[in-house]
Amino acid sequence: MDFSSKLLENAVYEMSQLPGIGKRTALRLVLHLLKQPEQQTNHLVEALSKLRNEVNFCKTCNNISDTEICEICASPKRDRTLVCVVEDIRDVMAIESTSQYKGLYHVLGGKISPMEGVGPQDLNIVPLINRVKQGEVQELIFALSSTMEGDTTNFYIYKQLEGLKVATSTIARGISVGDELEYADEVTLGRSILNRIPFENAIKAS
Amino acid sequence: MDFSSKLLENAVYEMSQLPGIGKRTALRLVLHLLKQPEQQTNHLVEALSKLRNEVNFCKTCNNISDTEICEICASPKRDRTLVCVVEDIRDVMAIESTSQYKGLYHVLGGKISPMEGVGPQDLNIVPLINRVKQGEVQELIFALSSTMEGDTTNFYIYKQLEGLKVATSTIARGISVGDELEYADEVTLGRSILNRIPFENAIKAS
Ligand SMILES: [Zn+2]
Ligand SMILES: [Zn+2]
Repeated sequence: MDFSSKLLENAVYEMSQLPGIGKRTALRLVLHLLKQPEQQTNHLVEALSKLRNEVNFCKTCNNISDTEICEICASPKRDRTLVCVVEDIRDVMAIESTSQYKGLYHVLGGKISPMEGVGPQDLNIVPLINRVKQGEVQELIFALSSTMEGDTTNFYIYKQLEGLKVATSTIARGISVGDELEYADEVTLGRSILNRIPFENAIKAS
Repeated sequence: MDFSSKLLENAVYEMSQLPGIGKRTALRLVLHLLKQPEQQTNHLVEALSKLRNEVNFCKTCNNISDTEICEICASPKRDRTLVCVVEDIRDVMAIESTSQYKGLYHVLGGKISPMEGVGPQDLNIVPLINRVKQGEVQELIFALSSTMEGDTTNFYIYKQLEGLKVATSTIARGISVGDELEYADEVTLGRSILNRIPFENAIKAS
């Protein structure tokens, strides 16, 4: 692309660093901002800066939070004996939107993927094991997506739990294999949590 | 969506104000930025701010430029008697990339669209007529997209030129009707400029 302005070229370049945004889309987005009042760009820029510089992850569950401990972990209404293990904060949002689950969460920040160079040490697994060791948690619900990476991650954590007194379960597979959790409809997702099965049974079944 | 952080909610909201970016995509983009080093967000934010606050449009042709007069208008190598009328700076970029055209441009900033409330006064048309009145321009090449709005805009400008000594032409329609100029392949686009036809002939043909 042949830019008539360095400022424009630079803005398009930075925008196209976002995943799924090619150069043409980036150009379209940037030109759109130029057509809108300056305020719109300023609001976008401030919101991104503020989030990036002030973002905080809950000390307990690793969910994004504006406070040191997130609202869910801090709530007296939640069942503290139950912890749902998810990849991503989008999965917390998806499960919360079902209003079916009253336990806590643990956000791993991804799943084990040798192909993408993600090992157990890159994920929030050690804090999960330590959380279980504290004794309050009675059941871990694995709610990772049912892909090979998800299964590997579940199994890795399961092995780390050996000797600890905690039940493990996985959400019921009403959700089709390979589907991302966050795109599941709320009813299916809510039901799959209520109908969770012991993880040992899930291993035998697969 | 049920956000666990106001900062996150706000960033997603602002991101989803961009055209074609829904809430889910916005969330994905924002979470991606959170996973990357802070530097990436800072670079994006600075590039957008700088462009929006310092953007300049060429006093002659309305193309985006870092200088008062753009490089094309300032170049002694360009044919100053030829002016190609386009909707958008993306069209300038598309035509420049063909390396076929050696004249100047005039960027209208859109096309007349009663449906979208865009009238002639919202476009950069008066400066175009004034440019022609100065006498240097001998030919205007209409290179708007061949939609009803494009045709309306061509015709409106054509009527404004009555009594002025200037030839008018449109780019040859190697490009399929209704297609956006910027997505045309370079060869087709370059050829359609070389094979342009007098605008009067185009009116008779349609
Ligand atoms: Zn928490
Ligand atoms: Zn110019």
